[in-house]
Amino acid sequence: MSQPLLLPTIPDCADPALTRQLQQVIDQKTKPLGALGRLETLALQLGLIQGCANPVITQPQIRVFAADHGLTRHGTSAYPSAVTAQMVHNFLQGGAAINVFARQHNIGLQVVDAGVDAEFTYHPALLDCKVRRGSRDALSEAAMTDAECREALEQGMALAEQLPGNLFIVGEMGIGNTSAASLLLARLGNIPLAGCVGRGTGLDDDGLRHKQQVLAQVLQRHHDARTPLAALTALGGLEIAMMVGALIQAASQRRILLMDGFIAGVALLVAEQLAPGVRQYAVFAHHSAEPGHEHLLRLLNAEPLLNMKMRLGEGSGAVLAYPLLQSACAFLNEMASFTDAGISESNDDAAE
Amino acid sequence: MSQPLLLPTIPDCADPALTRQLQQVIDQKTKPLGALGRLETLALQLGLIQGCANPVITQPQIRVFAADHGLTRHGTSAYPSAVTAQMVHNFLQGGAAINVFARQHNIGLQVVDAGVDAEFTYHPALLDCKVRRGSRDALSEAAMTDAECREALEQGMALAEQLPGNLFIVGEMGIGNTSAASLLLARLGNIPLAGCVGRGTGLDDDGLRHKQQVLAQVLQRHHDARTPLAALTALGGLEIAMMVGALIQAASQRRILLMDGFIAGVALLVAEQLAPGVRQYAVFAHHSAEPGHEHLLRLLNAEPLLNMKMRLGEGSGAVLAYPLLQSACAFLNEMASFTDAGISESNDDAAE
Repeated sequence: MSQPLLLPTIPDCADPALTRQLQQVIDQKTKPLGALGRLETLALQLGLIQGCANPVITQPQIRVFAADHGLTRHGTSAYPSAVTAQMVHNFLQGGAAINVFARQHNIGLQVVDAGVDAEFTYHPALLDCKVRRGSRDALSEAAMTDAECREALEQGMALAEQLPGNLFIVGEMGIGNTSAASLLLARLGNIPLAGCVGRGTGLDDDGLRHKQQVLAQVLQRHHDARTPLAALTALGGLEIAMMVGALIQAASQRRILLMDGFIAGVALLVAEQLAPGVRQYAVFAHHSAEPGHEHLLRLLNAEPLLNMKMRLGEGSGAVLAYPLLQSACAFLNEMASFTDAGISESNDDAAE
Repeated sequence: MSQPLLLPTIPDCADPALTRQLQQVIDQKTKPLGALGRLETLALQLGLIQGCANPVITQPQIRVFAADHGLTRHGTSAYPSAVTAQMVHNFLQGGAAINVFARQHNIGLQVVDAGVDAEFTYHPALLDCKVRRGSRDALSEAAMTDAECREALEQGMALAEQLPGNLFIVGEMGIGNTSAASLLLARLGNIPLAGCVGRGTGLDDDGLRHKQQVLAQVLQRHHDARTPLAALTALGGLEIAMMVGALIQAASQRRILLMDGFIAGVALLVAEQLAPGVRQYAVFAHHSAEPGHEHLLRLLNAEPLLNMKMRLGEGSGAVLAYPLLQSACAFLNEMASFTDAGISESNDDAAE
């Protein structure tokens, strides 16, 4: 057997003294107590992640992890596999939703070829981390060999380590990747498969039934893949494994993980099970319309910032929520306190 | 009796041909059908408001309407009336939440003195539209005389007419203005008062009970003020009346009305009843934690974009949602279509 997978340590964000300090700063801002609601909780979390009372976001980055999935040969997706490579070209040409939103918010975007079933010529915005041209057909064998899964995890860690800035978004593109995510959620979350499976990019009722049947067979085929690593290897996808590695590494460096929807969230679930503590660094951006996301959010005890009924992936939901994180830092750093502004306390406080 | 109040005509946004055209553009973008969820609905609405298939937001503006309320002498608010003027100074010095968020998003901000109980010296960011130093005590007389209410409405219309840009946010600051808003909602929405009254800036249980008792007496005192204009005059506040005028005028000019929470929403309710059609121009930004907002949203058939559990006012919730409107325009204008990008249609479509 090969060397055990070496994962970085995840620093604990808990810090009671800093929590008190942040809460005091928040409460002395010129607003009624608690009036900024979830923006206050967010500011507190960002302070704890950065270990300081004046958190600032610098050079936010998104990497869109792309791969194909062997399972799609069984007709589990509304779109043909070829669309993965076509969308990679669309990303590189700047025409996809994620390009538009990343430009809007000045977020650095690169595409990661984790395992697309196509060859690409050089492009400065494309990182070649291809492990294999698509994962294997999980209905007949493990989606990845142990070595392939490990390579994907390690590539993810390596690329996250080199990231500029302190905020990281994992986006994804891979026809068939809601299937892999559903399988991982069912297995690692111990949730009945039916609740984990949705229409993906737009299956009709027959298509959804067929997807559920195929996925049930895959779960049965790999009934013994029970640990996080074994499940990831047997049921996952190359882009998901690479996202898992990237999330673990990024958390170990105390980066803010701004989480997109269902697929990215499943990668976080795996990451948290492999390296407990990663979840502390996660800010949940949006509530996906993919039904499994509800279960996932409960497992991760997460309440996302946005509920736009989106189900696009690419990291699009995360990027849309990004300005809220900037707002959380900005009010903490820029708002006047009652003392600064010479404003009366509330009648209650005054009566004390 | 004086001249009847003259209100501008509100153009109808309904346009079936443009709706079809916009929907077609949205559906041909490189994403699964409907995958951008509520961002698609928003793009459609913005297109209809601007009467074109490529809506663009220019020079967004917020005006924060400030006034005091005679009713506060009965102890209906957690903060003393003096805080209204103190917060106006805070706005002018750039230290309030709304300053921070408006700066973040490059939204033009001015403060409107609609009726603060204090005198201010000249400041370029302060518009002197003062009708009176605070509204009258609605427990003993109408909050405004007919002439005062009319002046507030007309000042609101005049200032909206001169606004740059095509997106308008009304914010507000006025110790006691949740009381006035609750009264208007109860009367004009025909909703039991208890459901309309909340803790405002932070009343405790006793304070809330007292507020409810006082407001019930006010409603009783003005039981005959049933029309929108009569209710506004008897129960409203100077900043609310001025916001009503501003919203009506802005809608008549086909501006996007990006709506903040409870107080601004009540102003929209009055505006819609006075000048039907205004609501078509409204994008609801956030769900306020003030309990009456729930009823208001139902009355206006509105589902806000954000639910951050905020209850600050000032227009802060609206400004936080602003980037989502930019995103809606951006994807409509900048994303590639399937044809542009040479991407395969879904299997379903291909089989047709």
